[in-house]
Amino acid sequence: MTLRFKRLTLIGIGLIGSSIALAAHRKELAEEIVISTRTEATLQRARELELGDRYYLDAGEAVEGADLVILCVPVGACEAVTKWIAPSLAPGAIVSDVGSVKEVVINAMQPHLPDTVHFVPAHPIAGTEHSGPDAGFAELFENRWCLLTPLPGSDEQAVARIHEFWTALGSNVEEMDAHRHDRVLAITSHLPHLIAYNLVGTAHDLETVTQREVIKFSAGGFRDSTRLAASDPTMWRDVFLNNKDAVLEMLGRFSEELAALQRAIRWGDGEALYKAFERTRYIRRNIIEAGQETAEPDFGRHVKDAGE
Amino acid sequence: MTLRFKRLTLIGIGLIGSSIALAAHRKELAEEIVISTRTEATLQRARELELGDRYYLDAGEAVEGADLVILCVPVGACEAVTKWIAPSLAPGAIVSDVGSVKEVVINAMQPHLPDTVHFVPAHPIAGTEHSGPDAGFAELFENRWCLLTPLPGSDEQAVARIHEFWTALGSNVEEMDAHRHDRVLAITSHLPHLIAYNLVGTAHDLETVTQREVIKFSAGGFRDSTRLAASDPTMWRDVFLNNKDAVLEMLGRFSEELAALQRAIRWGDGEALYKAFERTRYIRRNIIEAGQETAEPDFGRHVKDAGE
Repeated sequence: MTLRFKRLTLIGIGLIGSSIALAAHRKELAEEIVISTRTEATLQRARELELGDRYYLDAGEAVEGADLVILCVPVGACEAVTKWIAPSLAPGAIVSDVGSVKEVVINAMQPHLPDTVHFVPAHPIAGTEHSGPDAGFAELFENRWCLLTPLPGSDEQAVARIHEFWTALGSNVEEMDAHRHDRVLAITSHLPHLIAYNLVGTAHDLETVTQREVIKFSAGGFRDSTRLAASDPTMWRDVFLNNKDAVLEMLGRFSEELAALQRAIRWGDGEALYKAFERTRYIRRNIIEAGQETAEPDFGRHVKDAGE
Repeated sequence: MTLRFKRLTLIGIGLIGSSIALAAHRKELAEEIVISTRTEATLQRARELELGDRYYLDAGEAVEGADLVILCVPVGACEAVTKWIAPSLAPGAIVSDVGSVKEVVINAMQPHLPDTVHFVPAHPIAGTEHSGPDAGFAELFENRWCLLTPLPGSDEQAVARIHEFWTALGSNVEEMDAHRHDRVLAITSHLPHLIAYNLVGTAHDLETVTQREVIKFSAGGFRDSTRLAASDPTMWRDVFLNNKDAVLEMLGRFSEELAALQRAIRWGDGEALYKAFERTRYIRRNIIEAGQETAEPDFGRHVKDAGE
């Protein structure tokens, strides 16, 4: 089967890297899985978890002879890793990544890659609030989107193989221009995470409401934010540093709108509040209709488990 | 058993009212359940759903002979309803409510109530994004908090009976000062809902990212917000109009913090971003340790169902 790679090298073995390793192994997508990571401790942990077949601290050695190399490192590390592995990449190899930002990553990686390899940037929209090699699970990508942002002139066969690879991992794959990707993700993912971090940070700083109270009564709406705000800080720092323009634009709009709601509250403008709250309902309905969610109360959580 | 009331009258039969009706019936907490609501259509629907034993459009008639009356109407309607029912309340009756704001509601209701009844304000912290009599279910309050905010001088036996009533519905009941309640809820519930409404509204207004894209890729973090932002607009309008001071204070702090993050993004201050994101992680851990949530990835949703 053409789907199968001879040697898949994963650089970085956090939540995404370890999940790819487990899923690729289960689906038999590579004859051999090679793992490289920055620290001896993490590499040792990957070995204990039996995530791969061979293990290297040296990313250059790790990519030798690989026909698929996927960078699973924070966005800010992509350029340095690319420089490191570039001289060792096998001709014809496909190089991909999993970064949540695409334009900056492409500009950081592309100039350092030899002409003999095929670069197919990818972004699986999947994750949990956990990180590290222990956080991975083979089902992470099932029924999740994976966006590919091929470059003008990308090798069609290489793009098709990455498309098939992610489809085999269970994802729904779509191709999109990198610039558009970064704007779409700025509003659907980056801004919501920033807001969640900020909300939890604000609660943390209150003098008059105790931490104990915030935690105890979090089910009223705050709890969802704490999950987003528990995500990997390094990954998210890099997302915001590298998707600056789109995030700042969305944030500017968000703050404008929030100022309008604040004004309506201050002046007791109930009509403005009702109109603002009423129009957002239908977006939820559309999400349910699009099959991204169920209409079951409380987000599909089991009511009986909810408070436990 | 002392727990049982002779006649429970519910004024308002939306999500909370209908859930109380179903749960009180199942747990046999009242010999008779009387329902009153503003519109003939909703009253008819309550009748079809067999939520009570008798049905009235006239709230005054509905409370006659009741030993427990619970107002399940939006916070802004509490004063008018209290004026309406006051002359018909039986001596010794307990009057309660379910409002998400307590100080303003107490000030609106208290002056109109006869001295012969016992007023015990309550707030079940439970809900879904659905509303109306069809949205109710008997398990809604199980393992959820219900906060009572008794007044200085409240009849202890009346408070104890409401405490028992909510415990019987499955809630964990706690008593709290009304002013403190409003500040705690402002940060754990009201501000998160306002932010969610605002985030969804901002996405809705974008010209360069389509609604279709927002909906399609919502799993990246936006989706939680759409659930909150689908909540009943009338209820939430009234919450913000009636907990103005606490919400404006929390909102001011939130905006200050957000401006600091915005500045860090603009100037590429990775260290400030990392520090901000890192400190929020432990709040999540505390929530899990407090038993309000499980550590299971993706919020206890079943991974296989997540994208369906």
